[in-house]
Amino acid sequence: MLSYDAIQRPELDQWSFTETEFNPLAQGKCESVMSLGNGYMGLRSATEEAYIGATRNLFVNGTFNRFDDFEVTELPNAADVTQVELLIDGKRFTLETGSVTDYARTLNLRDAELTRSFVWESDQGKRIRLEFRRFVSMHDRHLIGMKLQITPLDEGISLRLASGINAQMSNSGSQHFHEGEKRIFDKKYLQLIQTTTETKVDFVLSAQHQFWIDGTAVELAPQMEIERRKMEMAYSVELKAGQTLEMQKLIQVHTSRDSDVHDAGNLESLRTRSLETLKKSGATGYDRLFEQNQQAWASLWDRYHFEIESANRFDLLALRFAIYHMMVMTPVHDRRMGIGAKGLSGEGYKGHSFWDTEIFILPFFIYSEPEVARTLLEYRYLGLEGARRKAKENGYEGAMYPWEVAWPSDGEVTPVWGAVDIVTGKQTKIWSGFIEQHITSDIAYAVWHYYQATGDQKFMDDYGYEMIFDTATFWASRLEWDEEASRYEINEVIGPDEYKEHVDNNAFTNYMAHFNLQLALQYYDELKTRNPQLLSHLDSALSLQHYAQEWQEKAAGIYLPKPDERGIIAQDDTYLEKRILDLTPYKSQTKVGTLFQDYSLDQVNEMQVSKQADILMLFYLLENRFAPELKRANYDYYEPKTLHDSSLSFSTHSILASDFDDKKLAYELFRRATEIDLGPHEHSSDAGIHSASLGGIWQCVVMGFAGVRMLDGELHLHPKIPGKWQRLSFPLYWKGSLLKLNITKDQLQITTDSKDEIHLVIEGKKVSFTGQLQFEMIHI
Amino acid sequence: MLSYDAIQRPELDQWSFTETEFNPLAQGKCESVMSLGNGYMGLRSATEEAYIGATRNLFVNGTFNRFDDFEVTELPNAADVTQVELLIDGKRFTLETGSVTDYARTLNLRDAELTRSFVWESDQGKRIRLEFRRFVSMHDRHLIGMKLQITPLDEGISLRLASGINAQMSNSGSQHFHEGEKRIFDKKYLQLIQTTTETKVDFVLSAQHQFWIDGTAVELAPQMEIERRKMEMAYSVELKAGQTLEMQKLIQVHTSRDSDVHDAGNLESLRTRSLETLKKSGATGYDRLFEQNQQAWASLWDRYHFEIESANRFDLLALRFAIYHMMVMTPVHDRRMGIGAKGLSGEGYKGHSFWDTEIFILPFFIYSEPEVARTLLEYRYLGLEGARRKAKENGYEGAMYPWEVAWPSDGEVTPVWGAVDIVTGKQTKIWSGFIEQHITSDIAYAVWHYYQATGDQKFMDDYGYEMIFDTATFWASRLEWDEEASRYEINEVIGPDEYKEHVDNNAFTNYMAHFNLQLALQYYDELKTRNPQLLSHLDSALSLQHYAQEWQEKAAGIYLPKPDERGIIAQDDTYLEKRILDLTPYKSQTKVGTLFQDYSLDQVNEMQVSKQADILMLFYLLENRFAPELKRANYDYYEPKTLHDSSLSFSTHSILASDFDDKKLAYELFRRATEIDLGPHEHSSDAGIHSASLGGIWQCVVMGFAGVRMLDGELHLHPKIPGKWQRLSFPLYWKGSLLKLNITKDQLQITTDSKDEIHLVIEGKKVSFTGQLQFEMIHI
Repeated sequence: MLSYDAIQRPELDQWSFTETEFNPLAQGKCESVMSLGNGYMGLRSATEEAYIGATRNLFVNGTFNRFDDFEVTELPNAADVTQVELLIDGKRFTLETGSVTDYARTLNLRDAELTRSFVWESDQGKRIRLEFRRFVSMHDRHLIGMKLQITPLDEGISLRLASGINAQMSNSGSQHFHEGEKRIFDKKYLQLIQTTTETKVDFVLSAQHQFWIDGTAVELAPQMEIERRKMEMAYSVELKAGQTLEMQKLIQVHTSRDSDVHDAGNLESLRTRSLETLKKSGATGYDRLFEQNQQAWASLWDRYHFEIESANRFDLLALRFAIYHMMVMTPVHDRRMGIGAKGLSGEGYKGHSFWDTEIFILPFFIYSEPEVARTLLEYRYLGLEGARRKAKENGYEGAMYPWEVAWPSDGEVTPVWGAVDIVTGKQTKIWSGFIEQHITSDIAYAVWHYYQATGDQKFMDDYGYEMIFDTATFWASRLEWDEEASRYEINEVIGPDEYKEHVDNNAFTNYMAHFNLQLALQYYDELKTRNPQLLSHLDSALSLQHYAQEWQEKAAGIYLPKPDERGIIAQDDTYLEKRILDLTPYKSQTKVGTLFQDYSLDQVNEMQVSKQADILMLFYLLENRFAPELKRANYDYYEPKTLHDSSLSFSTHSILASDFDDKKLAYELFRRATEIDLGPHEHSSDAGIHSASLGGIWQCVVMGFAGVRMLDGELHLHPKIPGKWQRLSFPLYWKGSLLKLNITKDQLQITTDSKDEIHLVIEGKKVSFTGQLQFEMIHI
Repeated sequence: MLSYDAIQRPELDQWSFTETEFNPLAQGKCESVMSLGNGYMGLRSATEEAYIGATRNLFVNGTFNRFDDFEVTELPNAADVTQVELLIDGKRFTLETGSVTDYARTLNLRDAELTRSFVWESDQGKRIRLEFRRFVSMHDRHLIGMKLQITPLDEGISLRLASGINAQMSNSGSQHFHEGEKRIFDKKYLQLIQTTTETKVDFVLSAQHQFWIDGTAVELAPQMEIERRKMEMAYSVELKAGQTLEMQKLIQVHTSRDSDVHDAGNLESLRTRSLETLKKSGATGYDRLFEQNQQAWASLWDRYHFEIESANRFDLLALRFAIYHMMVMTPVHDRRMGIGAKGLSGEGYKGHSFWDTEIFILPFFIYSEPEVARTLLEYRYLGLEGARRKAKENGYEGAMYPWEVAWPSDGEVTPVWGAVDIVTGKQTKIWSGFIEQHITSDIAYAVWHYYQATGDQKFMDDYGYEMIFDTATFWASRLEWDEEASRYEINEVIGPDEYKEHVDNNAFTNYMAHFNLQLALQYYDELKTRNPQLLSHLDSALSLQHYAQEWQEKAAGIYLPKPDERGIIAQDDTYLEKRILDLTPYKSQTKVGTLFQDYSLDQVNEMQVSKQADILMLFYLLENRFAPELKRANYDYYEPKTLHDSSLSFSTHSILASDFDDKKLAYELFRRATEIDLGPHEHSSDAGIHSASLGGIWQCVVMGFAGVRMLDGELHLHPKIPGKWQRLSFPLYWKGSLLKLNITKDQLQITTDSKDEIHLVIEGKKVSFTGQLQFEMIHI
């Protein structure tokens, strides 16, 4: 169980959470939610000592590889550097034996340090204090630091520490690396090379160990072992009662995909650099290296400074948790890389990027650090090549974005087979890569959102227009003419609700395609006057003159499902005719997917059961196309039919609830969203944290409670902070100006250092100000 | 620690050995020495419940695959079927917690059943009896049977058993399989396909679970889980105190390399067969299936019936252990497969065959079951293709056998890199594949040995002559003319002593090459008269007329090192001039290779330090070329310089000691040989049992203590049974007749059912008899 009170270190209140008891059956929880990283690499927080059920992961962003022709590309699990075997008096130390007091494993979000400490009493009755510390540096992106302190309290002990680099790791059995060279330099520095089998990315991992007894440096002679794909140093030492042995292990990780040096492709220079930086790190030492990391994090937290005064102190912690993980998983350093659906915290979804990035995470960056948002969109620009290939392969034109993407030029990488169907005993086919097509308009939407909020014209000129135009061209080619109904339809798709496969006219998909087409038309017209030279350039590349007419015709003729007499918009052509199942027994379960213990996906397909927000997501994205009453009516209809089996669901519902003024419900759903990773469910995060949900938590607060929206190019604010909250304060970028918002129950304050006059709409009223604004709110 | 007394089951006295306490730091020991198999497959005996430090292996003979271009081919570790996770009252059962009484893990060599039983008391004070049984059927080579019985003794328990097929296994990280289809039929039968990545061998593994409570069959509804490369069924049940739950798990293993059906290459029919045989097995049930296995083993033990009356009851057990493992690891069913240096009991040496087969193991089969010996030699005949390729690649002619061989046509598969050099920190290059060349004459020797002992002329006509001629041709091309010394030399080799690399004129290599050349000349001459048609056929294929003259010239001119004034034959040109190191500190260590904690291989190369018997092996193989005094003198010189770091060493020294009448020493060295796997060293067998040493144990008894030798085509007997022994009795084939020998201190009895007159030489006297012989011995 996790505790959210910083009892042991009060200075970390609302900055840390703590595991107070080790549970070997639920190791995935802390491994994921306490995972470390810096956007360059992610380190899952498995314990130093090994346990059955542990999952050790080290991922370096963008280093995708495919095991064979039958699997899709994924982020390979690099060599493990964190395992340290401790033999105490000849027995392997494990928390499964003996007894433990003062146990605390804590992730400190402020400094991004993982600590673990306890007093362990062996079966023989010897008490030993152990303390572990670990960080992945935000200052030197190649550095992992570890520190371990052992103090026998009652009697002396014989201690043996075995630690090294273990490249026997795999992705659940799929080995992505050739066995590379292993060297030990000066009986001190370990270096292991591993190269991915298909993409030939070189990894160089170097490590060293240093020791102190009671603060005095000591040299321990290692026993060196080089096995297959593995190298290890074992150090033996006798400790007297009260003596403290400290071991520091420093690790440097470099790959041939690194973009911070010009010659990363040269393995020899990579090896040399790795070893030299390791030696430098060793001379600097853990404490100073950690300080540098702290400083880097401090400036990040300055940038994402939130304050929440809530009766529930957990709320701010949960938000910081979300921001922490977005920092840890986002490759701000390299536009060739995206954000994985599990970040860099687990094997789940193979490090692939989904619409999660554009719809759930990107808004955080658009409003908090627009340059990162731009980098993420450039990643999609680089993906145009694969999107065009996918369109062609499917008989379409323009850019059909892959449902899942890895290395940008790879194109579609969604796996084809999923979980077992309990009725047939066969694995279920995953159709998303073929027919979950809304991703293309989601990306167009994100480009538009970014542009509207930042006014970044250069981005649009360089990348954005091309993306909007070519995605519209895809939709134009995708639409199917229904002669009878005399309209364009989109048949045989999956919408956001993945429990409905092979449906026709999914409302979300149709509306968003329509949006995409209209947007292209709008920009096409604008460019004619604003930048005819660019238009002409784009025209020759993308045949705009030819397609623009088609966009026009299709946008005009596309079928956009309308509300029925009850005000309900059908999620798709047949949804409303399907059987209704009472979901109460499944909604009360903490584990997702329990429905599939009783029904196959084919059976669920025939019921009014939704995995997640579908049409409600549409109401959020294109909010001013739908009236509030319509939203409420549809919410009331669809909510009981929605299992929230997707982590993307709660935050959307929460924001909608804010929109129709149900503050209590909005807060309740926000709480459910914060519990997806940080809540009591022991296995929800086994495969990694839920990136989109983390973005969703930020959106609940900023888009929901603060009511921040971009509408028709204007910044709207409509704060409705939860009843339990007294105050909410946060930074927000709008068209290049950094605003600081401070919201109480009845007042909204905005300050900015920007000299520009800021225009915005608060609670429906147009307001302009320079420097500072104070606004008394009607809506409480 | 292992116990060799069959206290718990007296009927298994001298047939079983028992682990009396579980040691999680030394699991490799029992996993290997208690491994199961049937020549078709080998199953390492890891425990059902998982532990850190366990190594789970399932190998199917001959299914070699290479992970990538940088590794050599090896036997891939197939999916695990033995792991069963037990959750007792919600906690994972492990012997590392709670307390254990009545613990016994026993390998019953007679029936080839592995059993494990104990009473476990949980930390909560509940006592539970657990019993596990397991066998790999010698009757149905595709079958693995497992049985598990759980009885809560004091109070009821909640039990959850999770068991399935796990293909996340690898060879120390190298994954040899594509992820294949996983199916569950009728919520009951699991089936997993895996196909090797390069050689495309299909594996089909099918499994089912059946349950009984207190003897009454019960259906438990499974929770089914299909993950990546893994499938699992979990069954939950409440047991009252005193109730016994029995689970039987039956597994069928089939591959597309199977030779027992004509359509193994058809995956669909393989799948169907696997499922159908599984269902049949299920209907038969563990107990009856096990009886069939028992019967198959009973007839094997009839064939290899040894009796030893010794003051030390362990001696017979150790011999049975050796024979058991030779049964378990030898692919008697398929001549395309050889014997691995670790059998099928571990990843060590990758399933490759070495000279171990011909020199250490083959004699057992030549004299105990000649058809198997023939099969093994036919494996080498199939290897001619690879041997010829190797010769050509190295600029030689004829057949240069690979130092290590896997699939026969693969040719040389010795890996190139080994352990780390403590001085340079680099991995040591393994030169054996390049320059350990005596393997070629070892194989020629084995052909000759088999032919002499069996008189199998058809084998010689079909295969043997071709092997002898083409190996001689290799040697003829390999010899180097030394103008100054006016002789042929063999320079730049490794002899049997692998601590001397790049030596010139290794005596063993030169003498054996000379033997090979002479043998070819002899057979060439014989065939001229005996079978000119065959000779002409072979001549046209192998250019015998051309080469025979070269054999003659080279055999006459080869340098054969002679004894110096002390009677010492130099192991190679420079050995006797090297520095002598006092090996006492290293010889007293139980772990091998400890010298390399202090010296690099380059340094050891410059000392008079031998890994293993080298010249002494020569004295054994070509025994009548060397006088007994010479043998003793060389023994006395080389023994103190020999570390016995190879498991091939003790048995050779023991037989030599028998030869020069040091019975005490012979017995002592025999004991050392029996302790390589069965002795107290906890890690000696981690990578698998030592096949050659097992053959060596049999040779110590039969070649050493019974003094059985083939000399000049005659059977010689010179029994010298150890002082502690009263009687030794065993079967022996000689030229198609099965002899039963019974040896006491002063008498030798031989009986045979054969009608032929048997000619032999006992203690130097020619003797002939029919039916029965009784011989009073002088030598006591």
